[in-house]
Amino acid sequence: MTDLPSSKKAKLEPKYELLYWPGLPGRGEYIRLALEAAGVPYKDTSNESKEGIGSLIGLMSRQKVTGSDEAPVLCPPILRALESSFVVSQTPNILLYLGDNENLAPKDDTKYLVHQYTLTALDLGNEAHNVHHPVGVGLYYEDQKPEALRYAKEFRGSRIAKFFGYFDKVIKYNKSNYPESAYLVGDKISYADTTVWQLVDGVTFAFPKKVEELKTTEGFEDLFAWYEALKGEEWLKDYLASKRRLPYGDGIFRHYEELDVDQ
Amino acid sequence: MTDLPSSKKAKLEPKYELLYWPGLPGRGEYIRLALEAAGVPYKDTSNESKEGIGSLIGLMSRQKVTGSDEAPVLCPPILRALESSFVVSQTPNILLYLGDNENLAPKDDTKYLVHQYTLTALDLGNEAHNVHHPVGVGLYYEDQKPEALRYAKEFRGSRIAKFFGYFDKVIKYNKSNYPESAYLVGDKISYADTTVWQLVDGVTFAFPKKVEELKTTEGFEDLFAWYEALKGEEWLKDYLASKRRLPYGDGIFRHYEELDVDQ
Repeated sequence: MTDLPSSKKAKLEPKYELLYWPGLPGRGEYIRLALEAAGVPYKDTSNESKEGIGSLIGLMSRQKVTGSDEAPVLCPPILRALESSFVVSQTPNILLYLGDNENLAPKDDTKYLVHQYTLTALDLGNEAHNVHHPVGVGLYYEDQKPEALRYAKEFRGSRIAKFFGYFDKVIKYNKSNYPESAYLVGDKISYADTTVWQLVDGVTFAFPKKVEELKTTEGFEDLFAWYEALKGEEWLKDYLASKRRLPYGDGIFRHYEELDVDQ
Repeated sequence: MTDLPSSKKAKLEPKYELLYWPGLPGRGEYIRLALEAAGVPYKDTSNESKEGIGSLIGLMSRQKVTGSDEAPVLCPPILRALESSFVVSQTPNILLYLGDNENLAPKDDTKYLVHQYTLTALDLGNEAHNVHHPVGVGLYYEDQKPEALRYAKEFRGSRIAKFFGYFDKVIKYNKSNYPESAYLVGDKISYADTTVWQLVDGVTFAFPKKVEELKTTEGFEDLFAWYEALKGEEWLKDYLASKRRLPYGDGIFRHYEELDVDQ
């Protein structure tokens, strides 16, 4: 339960650099969790130094597109492999890259199941963001509250149960082939586990009453048992207790009391 | 310019089955274009027979998750490899699978650029859908028109230019390494080309006035030249002239006059 294994490791030999907005988990969290699960030392640049955000802004606004190994990037999160300088962006794509290179995905065709579940989790994550930003990403929540209340009603009413039910079924399906497995695909942890875990954690943070209600009405026992089991793994316990795990804030998963209950 | 090469080929030996809602391009179109570019015979089940949609519904509502090779699927599009019966879903994931198996992506690390550009194009495609469905996917456009007008304003005002500008830069970047290339990554067609092409085509269909304005104000000459060049390739000309290319309708890209201009 040390607070700084990542930065300690990073000082030794960071293998990757994560570039993301500082101070919030956001989409960067899906990448952090994959890196933590893989046990790879990395540098969380924007959070480890005040100047770090300059690297992010610099990379995004770079106009030079000639004779460089770095293809244009539109949005963070961005991952840079420090040895090769290869830059990769788009959350599911970074996860795909880490899956291939850090043993977080199988080598056979079930790797496409890992990607499929991951993309599905990210879809609900995006919808959870749209709940408080239904009209436009450039506006504040306070400026789109009536629309947010409408969106939240459908999100609570059907979307959470639909996706949580899907993942519950995914676990049952994997158990039918790997009865002893604690993971979503096969019997090894993959980036689908870390991503769906973060989704369940984030949705539970944002809509605690709704999730509590679903536990009673729908059950989803396999999903929540899997969630708790993963939370109990040493690497995740260590990470969650560290300062590298940022508290939820003004990111994807936000808790607004009025969006969690019927008005 | 025959109308039915796909079904003719399909009768000979379809390699894949595409399962998607019938009668509209939608997200299935990204898959169709990749299959057409690869020149692989496929069966567009829901569009080729009236009973086809039964296969789709059956697969989605399947409760049995034991002892099967088919992992649970949540949403179409779904691709089934007919030889192995392997089922894969989630648009970018199907494209990844086809990239690996049908030579629509490089084998080296630039394959992650193909995925990155594809995911970015699909992001704007999703936003284009949110323009007419900002509050909830389960509601009609007519029931969320005021919200749609607000969303459309931001979408027109900044999002199209941001993404089109990005892809224009992507083309410039690739040209700096492959001056003769007509494609987005390296000097071979990939599923990034087919996906970004469909995005530009769809956004232009939905927001013709805005796109015309952007051509004047922003230029994006490389992007539009690339778009036209791809449209001129034999396989795409054939496909667009065939009945397999469905007209835009009530899908992702919709043209509503009031969403294309300032109110």
